[in-house]
Amino acid sequence: MPSTPYFPDVSPIRYEGPDSRNPLAFKHYDPEEVVAGKPMKEHMRFSVAYWHAMKGAGSDPFGVGTRVMPWDTGGSPIEAAENTMHAMFEFTQKLGVPFWCFHDRDIAPEADTLKESNANLDRLVKLAKGLQDETGIQLLWGTACLFIHPRYMAGAATSPELDVYVHAVAQVKKALEVTHELGGQGYTFWGGREGYDTLLNTEMSRELDHLAAFLSMAVDYGREIGFKGSFYIEPKPKEPTTHQYDHDASACHAFLQKYGLADKLMLNIEANHATLAGHSFHHELEYAASNGMLGSIDANRGDSLLGWDTDQFPTNLYDTTMCMWTLLKHGGFTTGGLNFDAKLRRQSVDPVDLFHAHIGGMDAFARGLKIAAKLMDDGRIPQQIATRYASWDSDLGRRIESGKATMAELETLAHEKNVAAAPSGRQELIENILNELI
Amino acid sequence: MPSTPYFPDVSPIRYEGPDSRNPLAFKHYDPEEVVAGKPMKEHMRFSVAYWHAMKGAGSDPFGVGTRVMPWDTGGSPIEAAENTMHAMFEFTQKLGVPFWCFHDRDIAPEADTLKESNANLDRLVKLAKGLQDETGIQLLWGTACLFIHPRYMAGAATSPELDVYVHAVAQVKKALEVTHELGGQGYTFWGGREGYDTLLNTEMSRELDHLAAFLSMAVDYGREIGFKGSFYIEPKPKEPTTHQYDHDASACHAFLQKYGLADKLMLNIEANHATLAGHSFHHELEYAASNGMLGSIDANRGDSLLGWDTDQFPTNLYDTTMCMWTLLKHGGFTTGGLNFDAKLRRQSVDPVDLFHAHIGGMDAFARGLKIAAKLMDDGRIPQQIATRYASWDSDLGRRIESGKATMAELETLAHEKNVAAAPSGRQELIENILNELI
Amino acid sequence: MPSTPYFPDVSPIRYEGPDSRNPLAFKHYDPEEVVAGKPMKEHMRFSVAYWHAMKGAGSDPFGVGTRVMPWDTGGSPIEAAENTMHAMFEFTQKLGVPFWCFHDRDIAPEADTLKESNANLDRLVKLAKGLQDETGIQLLWGTACLFIHPRYMAGAATSPELDVYVHAVAQVKKALEVTHELGGQGYTFWGGREGYDTLLNTEMSRELDHLAAFLSMAVDYGREIGFKGSFYIEPKPKEPTTHQYDHDASACHAFLQKYGLADKLMLNIEANHATLAGHSFHHELEYAASNGMLGSIDANRGDSLLGWDTDQFPTNLYDTTMCMWTLLKHGGFTTGGLNFDAKLRRQSVDPVDLFHAHIGGMDAFARGLKIAAKLMDDGRIPQQIATRYASWDSDLGRRIESGKATMAELETLAHEKNVAAAPSGRQELIENILNELI
Amino acid sequence: MPSTPYFPDVSPIRYEGPDSRNPLAFKHYDPEEVVAGKPMKEHMRFSVAYWHAMKGAGSDPFGVGTRVMPWDTGGSPIEAAENTMHAMFEFTQKLGVPFWCFHDRDIAPEADTLKESNANLDRLVKLAKGLQDETGIQLLWGTACLFIHPRYMAGAATSPELDVYVHAVAQVKKALEVTHELGGQGYTFWGGREGYDTLLNTEMSRELDHLAAFLSMAVDYGREIGFKGSFYIEPKPKEPTTHQYDHDASACHAFLQKYGLADKLMLNIEANHATLAGHSFHHELEYAASNGMLGSIDANRGDSLLGWDTDQFPTNLYDTTMCMWTLLKHGGFTTGGLNFDAKLRRQSVDPVDLFHAHIGGMDAFARGLKIAAKLMDDGRIPQQIATRYASWDSDLGRRIESGKATMAELETLAHEKNVAAAPSGRQELIENILNELI
Repeated sequence: MPSTPYFPDVSPIRYEGPDSRNPLAFKHYDPEEVVAGKPMKEHMRFSVAYWHAMKGAGSDPFGVGTRVMPWDTGGSPIEAAENTMHAMFEFTQKLGVPFWCFHDRDIAPEADTLKESNANLDRLVKLAKGLQDETGIQLLWGTACLFIHPRYMAGAATSPELDVYVHAVAQVKKALEVTHELGGQGYTFWGGREGYDTLLNTEMSRELDHLAAFLSMAVDYGREIGFKGSFYIEPKPKEPTTHQYDHDASACHAFLQKYGLADKLMLNIEANHATLAGHSFHHELEYAASNGMLGSIDANRGDSLLGWDTDQFPTNLYDTTMCMWTLLKHGGFTTGGLNFDAKLRRQSVDPVDLFHAHIGGMDAFARGLKIAAKLMDDGRIPQQIATRYASWDSDLGRRIESGKATMAELETLAHEKNVAAAPSGRQELIENILNELI
Repeated sequence: MPSTPYFPDVSPIRYEGPDSRNPLAFKHYDPEEVVAGKPMKEHMRFSVAYWHAMKGAGSDPFGVGTRVMPWDTGGSPIEAAENTMHAMFEFTQKLGVPFWCFHDRDIAPEADTLKESNANLDRLVKLAKGLQDETGIQLLWGTACLFIHPRYMAGAATSPELDVYVHAVAQVKKALEVTHELGGQGYTFWGGREGYDTLLNTEMSRELDHLAAFLSMAVDYGREIGFKGSFYIEPKPKEPTTHQYDHDASACHAFLQKYGLADKLMLNIEANHATLAGHSFHHELEYAASNGMLGSIDANRGDSLLGWDTDQFPTNLYDTTMCMWTLLKHGGFTTGGLNFDAKLRRQSVDPVDLFHAHIGGMDAFARGLKIAAKLMDDGRIPQQIATRYASWDSDLGRRIESGKATMAELETLAHEKNVAAAPSGRQELIENILNELI
Repeated sequence: MPSTPYFPDVSPIRYEGPDSRNPLAFKHYDPEEVVAGKPMKEHMRFSVAYWHAMKGAGSDPFGVGTRVMPWDTGGSPIEAAENTMHAMFEFTQKLGVPFWCFHDRDIAPEADTLKESNANLDRLVKLAKGLQDETGIQLLWGTACLFIHPRYMAGAATSPELDVYVHAVAQVKKALEVTHELGGQGYTFWGGREGYDTLLNTEMSRELDHLAAFLSMAVDYGREIGFKGSFYIEPKPKEPTTHQYDHDASACHAFLQKYGLADKLMLNIEANHATLAGHSFHHELEYAASNGMLGSIDANRGDSLLGWDTDQFPTNLYDTTMCMWTLLKHGGFTTGGLNFDAKLRRQSVDPVDLFHAHIGGMDAFARGLKIAAKLMDDGRIPQQIATRYASWDSDLGRRIESGKATMAELETLAHEKNVAAAPSGRQELIENILNELI
Repeated sequence: MPSTPYFPDVSPIRYEGPDSRNPLAFKHYDPEEVVAGKPMKEHMRFSVAYWHAMKGAGSDPFGVGTRVMPWDTGGSPIEAAENTMHAMFEFTQKLGVPFWCFHDRDIAPEADTLKESNANLDRLVKLAKGLQDETGIQLLWGTACLFIHPRYMAGAATSPELDVYVHAVAQVKKALEVTHELGGQGYTFWGGREGYDTLLNTEMSRELDHLAAFLSMAVDYGREIGFKGSFYIEPKPKEPTTHQYDHDASACHAFLQKYGLADKLMLNIEANHATLAGHSFHHELEYAASNGMLGSIDANRGDSLLGWDTDQFPTNLYDTTMCMWTLLKHGGFTTGGLNFDAKLRRQSVDPVDLFHAHIGGMDAFARGLKIAAKLMDDGRIPQQIATRYASWDSDLGRRIESGKATMAELETLAHEKNVAAAPSGRQELIENILNELI
């Protein structure tokens, strides 16, 4: 255990209100403040992502890492890993964030054999457990890294190589065990390379069968060992592969239904993955929520003019407002939360930049929550929507919705009405109201 | 009936072989030539799309139509409609295409009342039936136009206005009846405006319920009147709406499964809609086929650098080859076909351009078929694929595929193998082989 | 002149402040309020776009118009045109907007001959002039519609047909004359179809020569008749063509420099065209401004997930803030202004929606201005930038900037310094500050 | 020097003709075959890119390298570098490619000081020179890597840090010297990070001034030391930065003109960078060529559905045909060539895959050349174009093109002609002809 803290100059981040000019204070996020019936921290359930926050060095396809963080220097790999774990809990605690998330290979170095890798993992999990107890920070979800190692270059659960698949199963088994041991409230599958580079060498259908078998085994095993948390699939359309099977929320929905898994897994929606798939973040959230599949959220943002996953910290108030609106409408999180799957820009090389980034993201969601709550209290937009669909709140509407109407019967009505127009959708007015509340 | 033909200078298009320089001859499409076990015409089942071929005037969002076709001048709307129908059959017959497709409002003008519109439709359907009998040309599929009229500005089956929904039901009922009367082998739903412009005024979930009720009623009614053809949904991600519910093949698949409609409707995959959704045409075809949902194809192409539906005639040999390869692998069409949902460029203002365009598309698919057949005979690519997945053709592979393996058992194997690498995917070699065969 | 107003229920729009819930009041735009040294109205110089505001009927590629505005019904085309002109001035005056913009064919119907078209135009220009005098509303800029008519299907100034080019010259000549007559402060070239559909039938280089000759003639003629306003080119990358020569600000810049026109024309930057070209609106504004070419602005917004020109009303506060920041930094408009080249959504079918839309856009820019001014007063972001470039404010920096340094001399310094790192770019901190000020 | 070759099982690649099924033979590229007046090898001037071919390990943002090539194992960094150089010349010679390209840091490891890095570079340059002499392989162009090292995280010639700029100057000075020493026919600037991540911390205008000063110094120094080759700028729109100043050919053209550098530098057009910028490869080539700026070509391809630089080997015959057509039309390369800036797919892990990839690319361009030559001989497409512009080959056309016409004069003609339509653009026919020749 380190004798000195890694962020000696940073005190715990406090709420100081909108007029504060202290870059290391919250201007909007006040964890205990009650909004829409419960404290903000319960709405948000913020989480720090171990991989980006602690392990991100700023490399990109055209350059090596730019950051050498103090916890990442000196000692053996396993010692560096321990230092990093300490740094993570110090950071998360100072930030006042109640959850963390990890991949197995983030927290413990991969060794030459699975056995040694598991031993490394056990050592770090033991440390993490102690630090969880000490700090009260909880595990939002765990996962396994099935995409960095060369063996997974053609996928893990969809690898054409049976041995690779088997290896992936073993790795996930262990990841499930340690997630359970750490009291994780969820387990996420991000199919990093579950897709294809070219259809010319791919049997799509067979690979999907393998993926379904993989998920089934994992869910069964998780329940077998007593894991009560949620399982999530995280949609992403592409990158690193040309096509990823978990393309978007509806592709996951189709897949899960086909293989009888729809009531066993939920979705972990990521903002940047939504936009890469050609959808708005709001769309993916609404789709997931309205199908009862909104489990958790990877909070970040992309750049709409760039075609890759930029994983920027979320600061756009329109996006955070719509996100919180959907959450409020659909009852909010149960086991999930807002996990900052976001990385510092390559040029942000100082440890303090990590605080700026997370504070900005947390404040952006806090404002989003307040605006969404105001939007509901204000009532004008909900009223516009209610009016728009009012004709369906009739006997005829109900009969159609319940599947009791026939074409012949409706044809008669159509001839009577001979409807020629429909009322204004009032999009501009509604957008103005939204801006009034921002 | 017109006393003179509309294409007096064009003789029936013949196959003249690859060395012909006659722009009005096929260089590759020889309908009776047997490829991969059956005549080309049976593989292709080409169809002319009434709307683009006969009604497309070359307008775009920044300009009015550029083409005034001889069948589109003079007389009352209903007379013009009749002339157009004659022109269509003359064109299709000269082209040697065995099928056609239409929307109700393409072939007969919409009147002030549904009743009159239906009467117009009946008159044209009667004419079409006579011309079908005369020429032997058959109806591939029919559909209803639920997107041009202002009443449908917020959708038809997903309109917030109940009256509009009811009107759409009546219109589809009639379209089903006339499709059946004309012996149509299919009926297509293209949800032109079944989506939203903004989520801010939309109840996505309720709209999807309405859409499902709509499709159910239609399928039931179709079967009730004895229609034995296929029902298709046509995926499209956007345009004219911001988001269309039938986004892509997987979104349709999710929707159909959710509402218990997966065995009642298949998909009509359009090339340009695939690319607009961020997928390759080949991907959407494979996805549909491997889920048993590939019903029919709208043959066109987009421009990968443009963000709207350019609906160009298909000429890219890579695309046509992959399309025909997927069809060959999965057994080809039953009720569906290759419908040219493609329009002349705005600057192509002469009737003869229609022939150039269709001939080019037919030849491109004919070459695609031959290359795909050669690719199978050649065997090198199929062999690469077989080798790639060979490890799964083992006892263990079969056990996993049949859902009988457990994580614990596989973990033991993983420790034994400790796999560290996987073999080359050989993408470049396979792409070279493909080029050798083109 | 109409005996009754077209918007009888709408009173002149007033500023009522941020707490107002009146949809027909400004919450932020107070024309006389002084911000950053001058009244808001002088910063903004708002303009109503005749084509969208008055002539937009809501049609799209898949549907006919949805709006039948009261000024657009009854009477001959020329009478309808006169009614529309009255409606425009009534609308603009009630809105409190000081400028308008038009295309020749918006305001007066095109006839069979150029002569008659000119006569129509003269009649409407006379009416407009009277209404300008009456209301004090001024013409921001005029332009000619060289893209709707079929003759222009392959471009106007870049048409392969000489006769079409000549026709376009004559049309622009007249448009320049009437713009001058109406006291227009600018004249805009939007090269609707100046580009190509396919390079396979195009001589790019020759077309660009023709375009340059066209612009030269027009500028010369404008000066000859005493027009003292600015000439603008409006960049757009594509749509309706596959490629437009005026792709983006830098493409225009390259073209104008090549043909010696860089000091004769400036740019009219449109937000949605910027994003279609893969740039942010902010980027295009900065590029234009920093090259002394920012003439005027077409204020709208696109949808980052759609690939066509959606021309939505601008409501995004991030965009309006960055726009006004660039304007403040570079000294603001001289002859240009913020022209609402934005159209109602297709479902917004009521006249009052026009007010909602413009009010929302004006308030969004008013807030943008206030935030930009606050950002400058606050000083934190400007200070971050100054610090970032401080090393260049040295003797060495100045010598390099003035082109006096040599590689050999700098090499010596490089060996001395052997620099290994650079300071944090502080992007997250700066984004947080921006959000604090929004 | 290695005692054994690195590709012991690969014999020099020979031309075996289109019927060969030998994956290690050319089917179309026959270097001495005369096409369009000169041997194919003189048209193509193929080049191997050191970085991808020899140093690419298959890493991507989500995974470490998958390939451990035999030349990349064992020994000190400098020994590995020497082995790699041997491997490169063996590979290039066996492939029968006459040129190579490199970055300084590809061929020699970067050390702690610039002095040591230069010493490393000298050692490898000496080796390369010997191998050039031995094999006859020549250097197409050299360049400096100004993007991998953390010091360049905010750019090199556009870094806000003066020390970083100075370091970059020194590095380019040395790179120019060694390029000259190796007889390089060109020197390329690829502005890896010359752009910005966010405008919020960027002074665009000042950075562009610095970039221009940088290029001026470099060109001057190159001429000073007797370098007679060409200087190239390589356009790229984005990645790794959010915006790169050398966005596309026209952005470079604008920049070079502004700073008086247009006759000192040409362009190195890359296929994948063209498509990332929203242009076709063909467009960028035509733009560059028709402005006399087409210097050299980075031959690769992207995936139109992916938003990053996939740098795949070029195999698309449409692209290679259009490329060679443009080259034939504009006179072909002088100092430039077709450099394979393309990398193996991550799953292609065997040394032999390098041969497959390059052979496929070379054959694709060889076919492209033959088709382009056929297209010219065939004459139908050139004839269509000539006819299309024929009206300009008139006295009036010439007068306009020479800038002697006036608006007034043309107006008179316009009234006489009153042109209402234009002839068909024949796009479909032309596309059919192209397909006939492929």
